[in-house]
Amino acid sequence: MAIEITRELLKGLQSCVANQKDKEILETFESVHHADIAEVLEELTFEEALYIIRLLDSETTSEVLMDIDEDTRERVLGELSAKEIAEEIDELDTDDAADVIAELPEERKQEVIQEIEDKEHAKEIVELLRYDEHSAGGLMAKELVKVNENWNVMSCVKEMRQQAEEVTRVHSIYVVDNDGKLKGRLSLKDLLMASTRSKIADVYIPNVDYVYVHDAADEVANIMRKYDLEAIPVVDELGVLVGRITIDDIVDVIKEEADKDYQLAAGITQDVEADDSILQLTRARLPWLFLGLIGGISAASIMGFFDEALSKNAILFMFTPLIAAMAGNVGVQSSAIIVQGLANDDVKGSVGKRLLKEMSLAAVNGAILAILLFFFVLVSESDINMAIAISVSLFAVIVVAGLIGTFIPLFLHKRGIDPAIATGPFITTSNDIFGILIYFSIAKLIIGF
Amino acid sequence: MAIEITRELLKGLQSCVANQKDKEILETFESVHHADIAEVLEELTFEEALYIIRLLDSETTSEVLMDIDEDTRERVLGELSAKEIAEEIDELDTDDAADVIAELPEERKQEVIQEIEDKEHAKEIVELLRYDEHSAGGLMAKELVKVNENWNVMSCVKEMRQQAEEVTRVHSIYVVDNDGKLKGRLSLKDLLMASTRSKIADVYIPNVDYVYVHDAADEVANIMRKYDLEAIPVVDELGVLVGRITIDDIVDVIKEEADKDYQLAAGITQDVEADDSILQLTRARLPWLFLGLIGGISAASIMGFFDEALSKNAILFMFTPLIAAMAGNVGVQSSAIIVQGLANDDVKGSVGKRLLKEMSLAAVNGAILAILLFFFVLVSESDINMAIAISVSLFAVIVVAGLIGTFIPLFLHKRGIDPAIATGPFITTSNDIFGILIYFSIAKLIIGF
Repeated sequence: MAIEITRELLKGLQSCVANQKDKEILETFESVHHADIAEVLEELTFEEALYIIRLLDSETTSEVLMDIDEDTRERVLGELSAKEIAEEIDELDTDDAADVIAELPEERKQEVIQEIEDKEHAKEIVELLRYDEHSAGGLMAKELVKVNENWNVMSCVKEMRQQAEEVTRVHSIYVVDNDGKLKGRLSLKDLLMASTRSKIADVYIPNVDYVYVHDAADEVANIMRKYDLEAIPVVDELGVLVGRITIDDIVDVIKEEADKDYQLAAGITQDVEADDSILQLTRARLPWLFLGLIGGISAASIMGFFDEALSKNAILFMFTPLIAAMAGNVGVQSSAIIVQGLANDDVKGSVGKRLLKEMSLAAVNGAILAILLFFFVLVSESDINMAIAISVSLFAVIVVAGLIGTFIPLFLHKRGIDPAIATGPFITTSNDIFGILIYFSIAKLIIGF
Repeated sequence: MAIEITRELLKGLQSCVANQKDKEILETFESVHHADIAEVLEELTFEEALYIIRLLDSETTSEVLMDIDEDTRERVLGELSAKEIAEEIDELDTDDAADVIAELPEERKQEVIQEIEDKEHAKEIVELLRYDEHSAGGLMAKELVKVNENWNVMSCVKEMRQQAEEVTRVHSIYVVDNDGKLKGRLSLKDLLMASTRSKIADVYIPNVDYVYVHDAADEVANIMRKYDLEAIPVVDELGVLVGRITIDDIVDVIKEEADKDYQLAAGITQDVEADDSILQLTRARLPWLFLGLIGGISAASIMGFFDEALSKNAILFMFTPLIAAMAGNVGVQSSAIIVQGLANDDVKGSVGKRLLKEMSLAAVNGAILAILLFFFVLVSESDINMAIAISVSLFAVIVVAGLIGTFIPLFLHKRGIDPAIATGPFITTSNDIFGILIYFSIAKLIIGF
């Protein structure tokens, strides 16, 4: 049931907390979805939220904690005892449990893990903690339904019912051999349709997509999106089934990747949100601004070399912001298309061909814009040499900016660096500098100063 | 089964097509996933791809067509007869079928719909065509499994087996009353666990999330992501169950939204890919570049007003690219955070508070950068007035740029315009102009020219 966050609701809750009206609080949140509870809590003060979290049963709390803002979660976990955290962990699926534990300080991890009552659960969580959080192993859960290929449908259904109680959503039933190696899958639908005496080996689908435990998270996302999968089994180097990844985790990966790339393109270096503190936001924004400052100082120095032009050709200096802005815009456009293509895994063919295409494209755009600017300068300044110098430079700058914008992400990608850092201030700044250098060099050649 | 796209594979296929070795072609693609076939076809010429598409059975072709690039699909459909298209359509789920038909020219739509053999299917497709493609109705499929609350589990299973044959993936079984109104849901797991004599009314889960047929696609995506849903039922204004949306369609919505916002931030106005034609790419990129040109010309005109400063204070002009770049960078950073917050629906509180926060943030960043620049100019130019003028201007420009970057997206959002257009060239250009205006005005006040 959705709950609407109104001022009255918040006021009511705050007074309940102040007066310790626990029953009323519990009634308010009865049968409310944990994602909605999390949203309500984020509107309260930390102490109020903590009070309510302590009140709710551990099944609800554990889910609420998964939905709440990361910073708040960290603070809440800091206030709870190892035993209290372990109780929450017991209620979570292994993948979420491992995520929560991974966020704890090193010495608390140990304490919490030792307090987990279900030892099997604890063992699985410890296994998951080994994997990098951006790998298939870091995404997968140990909860899955698997059956042996040598069983028949009847015993399979029996066994499954038992396993299914621990698994929130059954997507596929995985079929393994006696060594635990993944052989194929059964859909619930198939099982529903099959005769109870059939052997699993005769009814399962042997062609099954899977990923290896060390595959990167974004590769897994691309595979699941490409093949429209809702769950994918994860195997280790021996082909043994070790976990499964569900689409809801992948939706988060896709969203996070996209958000991160967007922020990088805008010159924000860390994952921040509008509601983060000014200190966090400053830390995320200052580095690129600092780079911009260095770039601006370099541009000023370059212009210093050409200052003999200033007295006679002042008009040249009026157009530097235009040249710099166009260089930046073209560079960002080119790099964005390449970065997006690389992320979606559809940039194919040689680097040379890519650059040639970008050059033609920039030449078309550049020619159109240069002609417009030529006539503008000619009419407003009645100086044909100046008009030629400025428009030819604009053309050259646009072509070079396009090439830089295409080349840098491809180069970074080849070197194994996330090309997303190249869209935005990095490209803008380097294109500003190159643009101004090219501009004054060409102008000097044509006008001669 | 995945297939690796090698030069040999493509060469082999091309020679098969040239020599009409149909059997070999079919063998190559046997049990290859349609998404992989689509990738292979995109590496061939259009004529080769068309030849192979005509060869494959209509079940495969229909899925391949859904995975292939939109432009290629349009061309392929242009080559097929209405009857051929109808055969493909017959194999597709209603949502995909409606998407394909929606892309056809108006007069062909009619022809194709009339050729569809399964009249029930045709009727459902026609119904789906009524909805806006960015609404819940435009995303939903008519294929779903529903049972009446008055049945018992036994008859329910029997009915379900029949319905399930038409539904690729059963997520939930929806429970409706005699009027077809959505009452709740049953999970396959629950059904598996329930006694066969129970009445559905006694075992179903009454609390079920749903969306209305006219809800916007991105709202549906936010709901499904928030509540981790894998499918959501869609109801009409009367509460009658009319379809369901599955997570794989939502994954595409999320990805497309993110890609679009990223491109807008980079100054690309239409949905393009790295592999599109130069004409398409030019059309998508030129508008913002044109805006940048206008901006640059305006900046040049503003500088023209201050040209009396040029002879004595040339150094001021050297720093205009720095000021413009910083104004642009800060504006893009601020707007990106707001745009992302709005998209994720977590920008709350008043506009005034937002602007105040952004002002403090910009003031912190601005002060740090201004102090750095002050010392640089002081040391390199030994002119304290100039150093004060340039650094004070930088501070002012950063604060104003931050405010503009925050205000414009919020304003657009309030007016019902997608704020994503505000990140990127729009903000950069307006901040360039304001930045230069502020810069010279403050400099004039301090230095006096």
